[in-house]
Amino acid sequence: MTQPIGERDLIQLSRGVPPVEAIPTAELCRQTVEVLSEFSGSIFQYAPMGRNPGDVHLREELGQFHGVEPDRLFVGNGSLQVLDLVTAHLARDSHFEVFAEAPTYDRALRIFERRGAKVLGIPIEGDGIDIDYLRRQLKSGAPAFLYTIPDFQNPTGATLSIDKRHALVALAEEHGFPIVEDIPYRGLRYVGSTPPTLGELANPARVITIGSLSKILCPGLRIGYAISDPSTSSDLAALAEDTYLSPPLLCQKVAAKSFAAGLVHANLVRVRDLLRPRHDAAVTVAREILGDALLTVPGGGYFMSARIPTYAEESELLAAARAEGVVLTSGRAFYPNASAEATGHFFLRIPFQSLTPQQLAFGLRKVLEFTERRWACVA
Amino acid sequence: MTQPIGERDLIQLSRGVPPVEAIPTAELCRQTVEVLSEFSGSIFQYAPMGRNPGDVHLREELGQFHGVEPDRLFVGNGSLQVLDLVTAHLARDSHFEVFAEAPTYDRALRIFERRGAKVLGIPIEGDGIDIDYLRRQLKSGAPAFLYTIPDFQNPTGATLSIDKRHALVALAEEHGFPIVEDIPYRGLRYVGSTPPTLGELANPARVITIGSLSKILCPGLRIGYAISDPSTSSDLAALAEDTYLSPPLLCQKVAAKSFAAGLVHANLVRVRDLLRPRHDAAVTVAREILGDALLTVPGGGYFMSARIPTYAEESELLAAARAEGVVLTSGRAFYPNASAEATGHFFLRIPFQSLTPQQLAFGLRKVLEFTERRWACVA
Repeated sequence: MTQPIGERDLIQLSRGVPPVEAIPTAELCRQTVEVLSEFSGSIFQYAPMGRNPGDVHLREELGQFHGVEPDRLFVGNGSLQVLDLVTAHLARDSHFEVFAEAPTYDRALRIFERRGAKVLGIPIEGDGIDIDYLRRQLKSGAPAFLYTIPDFQNPTGATLSIDKRHALVALAEEHGFPIVEDIPYRGLRYVGSTPPTLGELANPARVITIGSLSKILCPGLRIGYAISDPSTSSDLAALAEDTYLSPPLLCQKVAAKSFAAGLVHANLVRVRDLLRPRHDAAVTVAREILGDALLTVPGGGYFMSARIPTYAEESELLAAARAEGVVLTSGRAFYPNASAEATGHFFLRIPFQSLTPQQLAFGLRKVLEFTERRWACVA
Repeated sequence: MTQPIGERDLIQLSRGVPPVEAIPTAELCRQTVEVLSEFSGSIFQYAPMGRNPGDVHLREELGQFHGVEPDRLFVGNGSLQVLDLVTAHLARDSHFEVFAEAPTYDRALRIFERRGAKVLGIPIEGDGIDIDYLRRQLKSGAPAFLYTIPDFQNPTGATLSIDKRHALVALAEEHGFPIVEDIPYRGLRYVGSTPPTLGELANPARVITIGSLSKILCPGLRIGYAISDPSTSSDLAALAEDTYLSPPLLCQKVAAKSFAAGLVHANLVRVRDLLRPRHDAAVTVAREILGDALLTVPGGGYFMSARIPTYAEESELLAAARAEGVVLTSGRAFYPNASAEATGHFFLRIPFQSLTPQQLAFGLRKVLEFTERRWACVA
């Protein structure tokens, strides 16, 4: 039996948490103090209500950041909360169907299912969602909406190609379904050029774009937002007002000031420069150790992924890795139909944003070691 | 035609917003700066996840405030968000029944209905919910839960008597339904002594108590919480983690520090002393103008209420009052079955926390004037 392993020694191949050095802490403290001195009379009160409870300065800054009018912005308590409200908004019934990439963000799947959705998984390829597969599925009817993470997808790392973006928007128009695109990692591109969002390619009423400040500024302010047509934006605001009134004004004002002071833009450049070498080193290590099992070279974001053949039971694999200090996330949890995908391989999400090449190599070798073992004899 | 009336001149007989002088702004700014200096390394990061995402210091302070163990506390983004999660937790199906006082908090009704509930209104009397009526309804079956605001109820101002508290808890035990009690105004008692909460009288598994710092410290931090048995607390935490991860750590830490520094307790005393004379003066004015139509002398909280006989259409009454600078809230919106209650009277919620006796008298006289008019000839 090995020694118990402390939290500090764990190799986290699990959550997409920003490394602490990617958060501009001192600057954020400064902005917070400025907000306190400028808005002390209102900052601890309820936020003003009305047509859109999002702080007007923050919506203006976000509008400028994305090149859209502020009335197309809805601000919520983190992007997951925004996704929950968007799901409630688009679910006209207590039973409805959602199409999503398979695999996709596990918490998103749980939100859809809790809201009553049946989720159909559309396979994802190196250049994004499988358009031919989607086209065939649409013959049996359109979903309440399609959920996609087009940039540096969580969990695969794949980015939707420009051709497929056009094709997806055309299918949504043809079959009359809305697209919900989630773009938390979009700003973190380490190589190449950024294709337009689906929202930029389509009619504004066709796409709801969900963004977040968690990966480009900090997660602690819990600022997520949706870009949609102004009428959807008002509907989301009304739904939010009836669910939690508004996000804390303090957090919204700090975010707005961080944009106004140029902090978000400066931090984006800084984080890209910080993570680019980690990405490159991680790709080298993963290629060497995983070979063909590696699914993508992401070129941005936090994640790579691999599909590793194995006879191992996933729960036993996770436990065995954890016992040796390697924390993995369930691969099955990323699939809408967990059981169907669970046979014959382990899907491994590889968050590289906080790991040294040595840590990553150690973690990946452990995963290979455990996937290669037969598990019949493991307690 | 009278002059257009600016926002500043409006007489707000509508929302329960704390007067700005009830918020200890300077102290809150000081606590925030201290939090920034003490926790700068973690405050802008994701909150630690795990069994309970609520900040441990805040749960300890809230536990001490209410005399319960910290593991019975769940902290959320304001008490409305907590109520939404509690509703989702207790709604085992997509269709379920909730019992609630009639009238009750309008946003709570909308939350229940959006989650798929059919709400049955139980009339409320001067000493709280009508126990005999409730007992008769229970013969047809128990609800998924009963929602009550036992202290200085929103919107009536009524407080549940100690005898009825015992009776309600006994009925919940006998018929096996949970009680959700909402106590945002409980600390604001201006006269007399405070009866125990339902949670204090019952088996912990039987009652979920929802509290808020909005009326005793400030609304801007958006801190609401639930007190329940530890297992429900964990379930709510898991539901929250899958919906919005956690409330901002910054807000939770400022609230915790405000407790630790004695600010919450000091502010409670200060706000009671501030609002007691407003309450007393408002009662005098309301008695004089409304006579028997006044339903309660609350002795605490923010609200009185009246039931005023009228032939007026409510929407026209609200518009006419608004045109003369008196902002009213729909009385019908406080009833689960709006239409049934709308005939023959107007239910008036009277928030007195921010009004001078002169403003209140003006507002109430306008309401009487408009309720006494016949409306056939109004455009």
